[in-house]
Amino acid sequence: MTDDEFARCLHELVEDRRHGASELARRCLEIGAGSALAAPAANGAALRRLLAERSAALVQARPTMAPIDNLLARWQTALAGAPDADLARLRETAAAAARALIEESHAAVHRAAAHAARRIGRGRTVMTHSLSSTVVELFAQLRHEGVRAIVTESRPLCEGYRLAERLSAWAVPTTLITDAQAGLFVAKADAVVVGADTLLPDGSVVNKAGTYALAAVARDQVVPFYVCCESFKRRPAGAAAPELEEMDASELGAPALPHVTGRNVYFDITPARLVSGWFTERDEGDPAAGP
Amino acid sequence: MTDDEFARCLHELVEDRRHGASELARRCLEIGAGSALAAPAANGAALRRLLAERSAALVQARPTMAPIDNLLARWQTALAGAPDADLARLRETAAAAARALIEESHAAVHRAAAHAARRIGRGRTVMTHSLSSTVVELFAQLRHEGVRAIVTESRPLCEGYRLAERLSAWAVPTTLITDAQAGLFVAKADAVVVGADTLLPDGSVVNKAGTYALAAVARDQVVPFYVCCESFKRRPAGAAAPELEEMDASELGAPALPHVTGRNVYFDITPARLVSGWFTERDEGDPAAGP
Repeated sequence: MTDDEFARCLHELVEDRRHGASELARRCLEIGAGSALAAPAANGAALRRLLAERSAALVQARPTMAPIDNLLARWQTALAGAPDADLARLRETAAAAARALIEESHAAVHRAAAHAARRIGRGRTVMTHSLSSTVVELFAQLRHEGVRAIVTESRPLCEGYRLAERLSAWAVPTTLITDAQAGLFVAKADAVVVGADTLLPDGSVVNKAGTYALAAVARDQVVPFYVCCESFKRRPAGAAAPELEEMDASELGAPALPHVTGRNVYFDITPARLVSGWFTERDEGDPAAGP
Repeated sequence: MTDDEFARCLHELVEDRRHGASELARRCLEIGAGSALAAPAANGAALRRLLAERSAALVQARPTMAPIDNLLARWQTALAGAPDADLARLRETAAAAARALIEESHAAVHRAAAHAARRIGRGRTVMTHSLSSTVVELFAQLRHEGVRAIVTESRPLCEGYRLAERLSAWAVPTTLITDAQAGLFVAKADAVVVGADTLLPDGSVVNKAGTYALAAVARDQVVPFYVCCESFKRRPAGAAAPELEEMDASELGAPALPHVTGRNVYFDITPARLVSGWFTERDEGDPAAGP
C-alpha cells in the first residue's frame, strides 16, 4: 500500500458514517496488514517506523472510537517482538498479527452478543438506537427465537433504516420510529440494547447521539438498558475524556439562517449509573461486576 | 358558513401540522363565529343545535388537544343563556362570545409567557422542543433581554426550523440540533421550556413526541423543565386519558420494507414528577402550587 493509497484509506475512514467503531477498527487492521505487506520500506526498521506512523494517523482520524486505538496498540505490541533483520518475514509477521486481531475481534463480538442473547431469552422485544454491528449480531442470534425489534431512525443520516433492512431480511417484526418517539416506545420494549463506540473506565458509554436520552427514559420506565460490545471498546483507566466528533451541520438539511447555528455532534455519553449491565466477550451483564 | 365550507375547515383542522393546540383552538372559535353569523338555520333553536353539532365535530377532529374542547365548551356555556327568539341577535351574540374567548386566550398566552419570562430573567439560554406559540411569545418577551435559544428540529416535519426562522428574525442567537442531540445540549441550557397540547389533571403534559425524553435528560442533568401554557390546556379532573394522535407513517420518509412498521405518534406524555414548574396566566411556576 503506497502513501497515496494510504491517504485515500485515511480519508475514507474520516468520512465514514456507515460503520460503527468495531467495524472501523477491523478496517484499520486491514489497512495495517496491507501496509505491512506492500508499503515502501528499505529495511525492517523503516517498515516498523512507517507502520507505527500509519497506526497513529488512523487512531487520530476517529478520536471518539477507542477500539481503533486499542486494537492498533495491540498490533504494535505484537510487532515489538518480531525481528527486523528479514524484511520479507517482518512483512508477513505483521500482516498475520493484524489478521489474528481481526479474527479475535469477530469472535469477541460473537461472544458478547451470545451473552446478551442468553440474558434476553425467547420472545422478547429489543429496542436499540443507531446501527451497531454487535447489536446486529445479537438480532442474528435471536432471530429464530421470536425476537421483535424497535428501531430508531437515528438522525441525521438515519442508519436505523439500514438496521431495519437487515431485520426485514430476517423477517424480524420491527417497529421503526423517529428518535423523538423513543420515550413513547421504550415502555413497549423488554430491554434496550445498544453497542458502544467507546466504554469509559467508569462504565459510561460513548455511543451515537440519542443514546443518552434513550437511557434516561429507559430508567424512568424501569426498562433494562444494556450495553453490548467487545472489551476492546474500553478506554484504559486514567485516559482523558474522549473528543466527541462533530460532523458537518449540512447533514441536518436545515435552512441556513442568520443567527442560527446548526450543530451535528455525533456521539453522546451515557453515564454508567443509567446502564443496567455490560455484555462483553468476558462479561455476562452482571451489574454487580461493573463494566 | 355553509356545510361545505365547514367540512373544508374541518378537513384542514384534521390535517394541520403547522399549529399548536392554542392556535387551533382559536381557529375553532373563528369557525364557530363564522358558523354563528352565516350558517343556514330557520330559527334560533336550529342555529343553536347546529353550532353544538359543529362544536362537537371540531372537538372530535383533534382529540389530543384539550383547549379545543375547553374553549368550545366555554363558548357553548356562554350561548346557553342567550335567548332564541331573535335569530339575528343570537347570531351576533354567539359570534361576539367566540371573539371574546379568542381575545381571552391571546391574553392568557401573553400572561403565561410573562410569568415564565420573569422567572427566567436576563441573559439566559432557553431550550425548547417543537413549535409552541406560547414559547414563541416567551422568546418575544425575552428577545431584548439577551436570551439565547437551543431548538430541536422536531421530526418528522421539523417545525423546529420554523421556530428557528422566528428567532433568526429577532436576532436571537440560536443553536439548532437534531432531536437525538437533546441529551447532549440540555446541559448547556439554563432552563427547558415547552408548551403543551394538553395538561392532564395531575400536571402531566401531553406535548409533541420527544418532550418526555427531553424532560428525562433535563432531570438527569438537573436543568429545570418548565411548562408554559394557558390554563385552557387543562383537562378536567376525572377526564379519561387522551388519545395520542398518530399521523401517516409516510411522513417519516423511511423505506417501505416487509416486516417493518413505521410509527408516527405525534404526542407523548411527560409525567408531572419531571416538571419543575407550570406557568399559566394564573400560575407563576411555583412547583409547590402544582399544576
